[in-house]
Amino acid sequence: MRRRSSLTSADVSADTGLLSPVRAGTAVEEATGDAAYVRALLAAEVALVRAQTSLGHAPAGAAAAVASAAADTARFDARSLALRARTGGNPVIPLVADLTAAVAEEAPEAAAHVHRGATSQDILDTAAMMVVSEALGLILADLDRVAAALARTAAEHRDTPMAGRTLTQHAVPTTFGLKAVGWRSLVLDASARLTAVRSTLPAQLGGAAGTLAAFEAFVPSGNPESRPDASFPDASTTNASARVASAADVSATQDVGVRLVEAYATATGLAAPALPWHSLRTPVADLGGALAFASGALGKLAADVLLLSRTEIGELSEKTGGPSSAMPHKANPARAVLIASAARQVPALAGILYGSLAAEDERPPGAWHAEWQPLREALRTVGGAADAAAALAEGLRVHPRRMRENLGITGGLIVSERLVAALSDLVGRAAARTAVTSAAGRAARDGTELREALRQEPALADVISDDRLRTLTDPAGYTGSSGVLVDRALRRPNAPS
Amino acid sequence: MRRRSSLTSADVSADTGLLSPVRAGTAVEEATGDAAYVRALLAAEVALVRAQTSLGHAPAGAAAAVASAAADTARFDARSLALRARTGGNPVIPLVADLTAAVAEEAPEAAAHVHRGATSQDILDTAAMMVVSEALGLILADLDRVAAALARTAAEHRDTPMAGRTLTQHAVPTTFGLKAVGWRSLVLDASARLTAVRSTLPAQLGGAAGTLAAFEAFVPSGNPESRPDASFPDASTTNASARVASAADVSATQDVGVRLVEAYATATGLAAPALPWHSLRTPVADLGGALAFASGALGKLAADVLLLSRTEIGELSEKTGGPSSAMPHKANPARAVLIASAARQVPALAGILYGSLAAEDERPPGAWHAEWQPLREALRTVGGAADAAAALAEGLRVHPRRMRENLGITGGLIVSERLVAALSDLVGRAAARTAVTSAAGRAARDGTELREALRQEPALADVISDDRLRTLTDPAGYTGSSGVLVDRALRRPNAPS
Amino acid sequence: MRRRSSLTSADVSADTGLLSPVRAGTAVEEATGDAAYVRALLAAEVALVRAQTSLGHAPAGAAAAVASAAADTARFDARSLALRARTGGNPVIPLVADLTAAVAEEAPEAAAHVHRGATSQDILDTAAMMVVSEALGLILADLDRVAAALARTAAEHRDTPMAGRTLTQHAVPTTFGLKAVGWRSLVLDASARLTAVRSTLPAQLGGAAGTLAAFEAFVPSGNPESRPDASFPDASTTNASARVASAADVSATQDVGVRLVEAYATATGLAAPALPWHSLRTPVADLGGALAFASGALGKLAADVLLLSRTEIGELSEKTGGPSSAMPHKANPARAVLIASAARQVPALAGILYGSLAAEDERPPGAWHAEWQPLREALRTVGGAADAAAALAEGLRVHPRRMRENLGITGGLIVSERLVAALSDLVGRAAARTAVTSAAGRAARDGTELREALRQEPALADVISDDRLRTLTDPAGYTGSSGVLVDRALRRPNAPS
Amino acid sequence: MRRRSSLTSADVSADTGLLSPVRAGTAVEEATGDAAYVRALLAAEVALVRAQTSLGHAPAGAAAAVASAAADTARFDARSLALRARTGGNPVIPLVADLTAAVAEEAPEAAAHVHRGATSQDILDTAAMMVVSEALGLILADLDRVAAALARTAAEHRDTPMAGRTLTQHAVPTTFGLKAVGWRSLVLDASARLTAVRSTLPAQLGGAAGTLAAFEAFVPSGNPESRPDASFPDASTTNASARVASAADVSATQDVGVRLVEAYATATGLAAPALPWHSLRTPVADLGGALAFASGALGKLAADVLLLSRTEIGELSEKTGGPSSAMPHKANPARAVLIASAARQVPALAGILYGSLAAEDERPPGAWHAEWQPLREALRTVGGAADAAAALAEGLRVHPRRMRENLGITGGLIVSERLVAALSDLVGRAAARTAVTSAAGRAARDGTELREALRQEPALADVISDDRLRTLTDPAGYTGSSGVLVDRALRRPNAPS
Repeated sequence: MRRRSSLTSADVSADTGLLSPVRAGTAVEEATGDAAYVRALLAAEVALVRAQTSLGHAPAGAAAAVASAAADTARFDARSLALRARTGGNPVIPLVADLTAAVAEEAPEAAAHVHRGATSQDILDTAAMMVVSEALGLILADLDRVAAALARTAAEHRDTPMAGRTLTQHAVPTTFGLKAVGWRSLVLDASARLTAVRSTLPAQLGGAAGTLAAFEAFVPSGNPESRPDASFPDASTTNASARVASAADVSATQDVGVRLVEAYATATGLAAPALPWHSLRTPVADLGGALAFASGALGKLAADVLLLSRTEIGELSEKTGGPSSAMPHKANPARAVLIASAARQVPALAGILYGSLAAEDERPPGAWHAEWQPLREALRTVGGAADAAAALAEGLRVHPRRMRENLGITGGLIVSERLVAALSDLVGRAAARTAVTSAAGRAARDGTELREALRQEPALADVISDDRLRTLTDPAGYTGSSGVLVDRALRRPNAPS
Repeated sequence: MRRRSSLTSADVSADTGLLSPVRAGTAVEEATGDAAYVRALLAAEVALVRAQTSLGHAPAGAAAAVASAAADTARFDARSLALRARTGGNPVIPLVADLTAAVAEEAPEAAAHVHRGATSQDILDTAAMMVVSEALGLILADLDRVAAALARTAAEHRDTPMAGRTLTQHAVPTTFGLKAVGWRSLVLDASARLTAVRSTLPAQLGGAAGTLAAFEAFVPSGNPESRPDASFPDASTTNASARVASAADVSATQDVGVRLVEAYATATGLAAPALPWHSLRTPVADLGGALAFASGALGKLAADVLLLSRTEIGELSEKTGGPSSAMPHKANPARAVLIASAARQVPALAGILYGSLAAEDERPPGAWHAEWQPLREALRTVGGAADAAAALAEGLRVHPRRMRENLGITGGLIVSERLVAALSDLVGRAAARTAVTSAAGRAARDGTELREALRQEPALADVISDDRLRTLTDPAGYTGSSGVLVDRALRRPNAPS
Repeated sequence: MRRRSSLTSADVSADTGLLSPVRAGTAVEEATGDAAYVRALLAAEVALVRAQTSLGHAPAGAAAAVASAAADTARFDARSLALRARTGGNPVIPLVADLTAAVAEEAPEAAAHVHRGATSQDILDTAAMMVVSEALGLILADLDRVAAALARTAAEHRDTPMAGRTLTQHAVPTTFGLKAVGWRSLVLDASARLTAVRSTLPAQLGGAAGTLAAFEAFVPSGNPESRPDASFPDASTTNASARVASAADVSATQDVGVRLVEAYATATGLAAPALPWHSLRTPVADLGGALAFASGALGKLAADVLLLSRTEIGELSEKTGGPSSAMPHKANPARAVLIASAARQVPALAGILYGSLAAEDERPPGAWHAEWQPLREALRTVGGAADAAAALAEGLRVHPRRMRENLGITGGLIVSERLVAALSDLVGRAAARTAVTSAAGRAARDGTELREALRQEPALADVISDDRLRTLTDPAGYTGSSGVLVDRALRRPNAPS
Repeated sequence: MRRRSSLTSADVSADTGLLSPVRAGTAVEEATGDAAYVRALLAAEVALVRAQTSLGHAPAGAAAAVASAAADTARFDARSLALRARTGGNPVIPLVADLTAAVAEEAPEAAAHVHRGATSQDILDTAAMMVVSEALGLILADLDRVAAALARTAAEHRDTPMAGRTLTQHAVPTTFGLKAVGWRSLVLDASARLTAVRSTLPAQLGGAAGTLAAFEAFVPSGNPESRPDASFPDASTTNASARVASAADVSATQDVGVRLVEAYATATGLAAPALPWHSLRTPVADLGGALAFASGALGKLAADVLLLSRTEIGELSEKTGGPSSAMPHKANPARAVLIASAARQVPALAGILYGSLAAEDERPPGAWHAEWQPLREALRTVGGAADAAAALAEGLRVHPRRMRENLGITGGLIVSERLVAALSDLVGRAAARTAVTSAAGRAARDGTELREALRQEPALADVISDDRLRTLTDPAGYTGSSGVLVDRALRRPNAPS
């Protein structure tokens, strides 16, 4: 490993968002930076000794001493930890060294209680879940903003007609309200999935191989929950047969571990896991899926905004600052572009996380390490997309006039489905279809209105009035259940309660 | 498009499982074959006309006529549909043609009611969800078998000690019960996710652009739920002003669509969606995630079995038929290999499905079509893995003697963590660590037992008895809370209630 | 594993293309069906014994007998092989059984020479490469058609002006010739990558662990290339010291293996590999990359066609059969939709193949098996996309009038960049920018032409003639080097020589 | 977008490698940091004005002035650019503003020549290719180290026998030399692919929509390569007909753009592209594939090292610093773990890059932006893996004794294939197979050597000497062509010439 100028290596090598404008400067970016991870790693170490102290496994002063040392965050430099992480493969090893040294300066007797019984993964997984919890909180708040803004938009445009488009072509009319409420339903689905994952994020504690054995080994003698093999330290050298612990002893000892996990989880604010999950990666896989879902849900919004704000379509536009310098006529849908860029990345990152489920041993050689950066990138990318989507949804400009104009550009062909249905009642289905097809062809060829062309169809002579034809060819009158669907969908609350 | 000999083109081009042994011949493969999809497509068409008939939108005989024609499944050839699907981009178009022709032969008046008001996607999405429901039922049954077998294994081996391995190296002891109950917890997590998705699989109905307009357009006059613009067909040519429907009329009409969706969902056995989801792909994305999870959950089991059945480790083996012909000594872990192959494929397929969330319009040009084959492949691959895992788990052979032997191959080093903890009480932590490190080095160099080497450490002279040392270096005595963790985890039921 | 009705299980479970219209009925689908793989597996077995016969390692009649038995392809049923593959994990094991039985019926003495010394992977990998070679040949022919058609289109429309669009907005003018020649350059890049991979597809031969040892073990005594330990069979029981082969002997023996590999490669029509590649998966990874590239290259063409054939844009349309039945006005870009669906799938499949590079042992437990189906799916999907792209490119309808109309919809704003440049010469850059921005704003507000608005800018009074303004605001006059770029790009030949 | 404390936002949000130990502190990390990208962006701007100056399109002093301003790199803060990039979607917009301001301070007349005629993508794509070129140079140097070290290892262990393992089980013997030379061949394949991509990395120049029009528009009048519409500026206001440029004029003008591209490419050190590639993403897609290949090639090495250094196998170990603190017996294969983590991530990142090929327009809304971060992450991750692999390969410890011991643990069964072959010559194939199978079963049951068991087989009585049996059951004597294959493979040079 070649290192250059380690003094400033953080600066020269850092990723500060230059290549990821979707998240640069957002709250989630900060909540998931290296600094936030270091804080969370320290918080996990403090939570552990606090839990041990609370159960009498460590002396009363140990927790306070470790917490005090950990509070001096300036002492724990992310870049330095990163550089020293490479030898052992994870940043907890150097962090423990630094933290132990810091504790030893002020409270030497407490130093032995830093990280006692724990394995690096206990701390790193717990810290990651703490970071995730914070980041998801921010993301959910932004998604709430998106949902609320879209609810307003959908209500306002409940009956605003626009072209429904399938396979790139005008199909039949729809309403912008129905489109907006559909975007919102996806956003609410995303919120529901992220909320579900967030509510069960577990702390991690298991020791070297997930048996909690070391935590029990370090329970001091004399403690009411003391381990059997330590409870009679003097006797142990003289009466070995006593060391065959009774079943009750063993059970009591084993419960020590479980109780410690619960105390630790409480101290971290995370859920207590049913089992140590060093190689049972449900939480991380679920996060991958929920984040991929969220990126796609917002990506649907962005895809439609991008399309509908095209120069030729012009039905939507983003609320933007000002004109571009080079081409003053351009008003790029910049937020939608960023969201779209996010939607293209996160599913692949989720694939890495799902792939890490299938991993051997009590700690897999690679699959665990492969999770860290993709999880962070997924959080940041979705966080940036949610931030951009909130601004997009809150500032979205709707242009009903352009919607109406576009509805008309097929000269009425967009309601040919309805015409066939209505005319079938009058002249039979076959004749109705023939007439509509013939008239449509003529209208397209001559650039006339479909209504005019229909009036020249012999089969329709004298069977339908001009006014009726006008009604039938009005796209705004053929929006089906759109209004009812919007009303029903809006009854779903903005945020999961 | 070049076609060759279409008569037998199904045979010459078919995928019958040759390259996917993980699923060849399984029930899920059959439940997801082209034939199953054709049946489901027909069932969706029948459900639609049944729903329409039940609401009086279609004459009483129409449903029976369509159902009768659809029942002659030999008439609907998957390969022929596939070939004709290419022009229009989906197989529903030729299916409707064939079904309409079949109905017309027996009940000409009913032919017009085939697919009335529907769009291809209504039928294809609904059929896919019906196929998914069936396939997930089979998968869940196999996962139940896996969970039940692993529960038995975990209970039986609750206290069977084995080496805990981290980053490929022996770390500290664990138990096989704890490992098996961990596998089971992942399988139960997979079942929970698949069950949740399965319980909400929605039918799809929206018409051309999701507004349900066409269904209302086709409601016959005179029907109590008739559409305003058709309720007075004669008057319509003379009194156009009457065509301005009252708000109440419109509302009644719009409810027609919503009621039809509910009737249709009931007829299909699927859930009624809150909104048409032609371009709101929550169900498909969720399926992708749940299936990727399941493949990974089973993949963890397979990864461990593959490792532990290695020639050098030999702690597990599959129950297999007989020796290989070429190399009689080999007993390949064939089922685990197949499961592992599945776990490598499904996350990528899920990524395609998550990627299809971000798609423009009321029907996207490509993103929808890109879902079909990956969803099927994911179902089949997971289905095959679940089938193989059931056989694997039910036939798994455990070799506690080899586990015990392997525990010993580091000569006691596997309990060095415990030794440091216990000796710290006697000689202080620093001296304890020094003594254990020194003895460990000597033991490794000389090939002796760690216990013997420890007895030669001056610092430990006279402070610890030989029996105590024997106890402390017994790996089986250092399994922490494994037993309690197994007991707690086994309280989780095998199948979601 | 539950099996149902194995007699007809091929029919009930088969994938015959129903869910993959992009490839249903194409030549590549047939070339990659199970039947094609079975033929290739048999061809690989025949090639092996032919090579052995040619070197004198097998009797002269063995090759003929095996070839004769293999020629009766009706005897080798893909579905039956698939079902029996599950136990051992691959279809070669049952194939060898069937082939050996077939040979034994006619030429019992030749039966022992079936598959002699080979491992299943030798045959399956070789067969896969034979299938790939055939499929790539078909794909390349279609790509040649695409490139040729696009060359014609680009030449014809070398100077057809159209709007250049960036981030969904009109930017500056471009030409359709430049766009078409860009599509072609991507297609040629795809051809070049596929051609490069195809030209080096290697046969696979290595025996059980890639050492070729078994092939040497089976070389009969008396053969000029005989193995040392077999050359004196009688002596071997009496004079063991003679069994210490000289270095020259060993070298001769080892060369036997290498020569066999070359003879085998010749017999298969594939390249001779430098090393057995059982777990060195360069060819498969390269295929993944080249196929993903091809799907994306065609996907770019499809993305643009989809966009430019939108109802509102209408600059391109596919040559299609006839109007849709339900909505006669619709002319869906069906081929582009299929190609777009392909482009969304293949990158993920390539990810699986790249992922299989990192695999342990001489034959990995899962990574190898995970390649088979994704490779086939990638071939078929790209094959279908290439077939569709050929039809698309050859039938593409270009509408220069719509291109010209769309160029004008910003009222001249699309050339604002040019105006700023030209006016800077006259009034300075700052004043030029101010004038253009001001006029553009007024033009957009009032719906007038930019040219008119510019004439009202005080700063421009008397400095520029009306004719000059007309010239400067003509989008067709601002297409830069488009023509030269088209000419240069067209010099690249359609197909790699 | 919420921003916090922008003064220190770089520090609080930065990724400095904490979660990616595989690359923390490596040269490639530094070469791909935000700072390196900023330097490359500035270099691209300087190259542009240099090219324009060299062709007389910009005054002589402009290039020097811009270069001088750009040299004050402290003025261009990556974090500030990142934060300001969000509005417009890319960091070039604020960079141009900063650079223009810097130039204006010293040489106001040169300010107008900054970024003249260019679009943001011209600069960002070019800068990315410059960064890639540097990073690939570093990666290739590390791969050369890996290949050289593995060549030495393979030569040294050309004939070191070890167990060949397939599907986790001992199959037949192989040599460590053959394994090592196989790793090397993959590494050389990776080098070849990266070298090929690196040698053609193109500069990007096209202006707003890839027509180069703006560059021509800005060519000053009087310049020998002046644009036609500017060559007679006075006449242009009086004689519009003269503005119809002759074909020769147009050609000359258009060539201006092409010549500028070539001069610009020369100034950047990159290749001149045949076409602007704003939406023809061949270079980026190729990079994705080559980097995924490289990660997998190194991943194969890591997968084998991880396996062979397992506690139970112990045939390899990494050269590491010292014992772990908690578990003194552990010597984790830390470098292999990091490489393995990389191999799990890069294929998914490559999938994003391949996916960006299929993108609409002259600049796609999202697909381009989605490339930046995954490309950087792929470079860094592969760079870190290559760095770790160099250390791993150069320090790899091989334990031939353990290889030999492991070869023996099946009691000779590993050569059963050979025994069947050899005994077939003596007693016929059927009898040989029966005898070996029977003896193998007995040996496994009784824990005896296969050789002993064979001696008790009646069929073999008196047909084979004990010495001959000893020879035949010696695994080291059954390594086939391993040696010859190693020799041949080593003839391939370490680095592409």
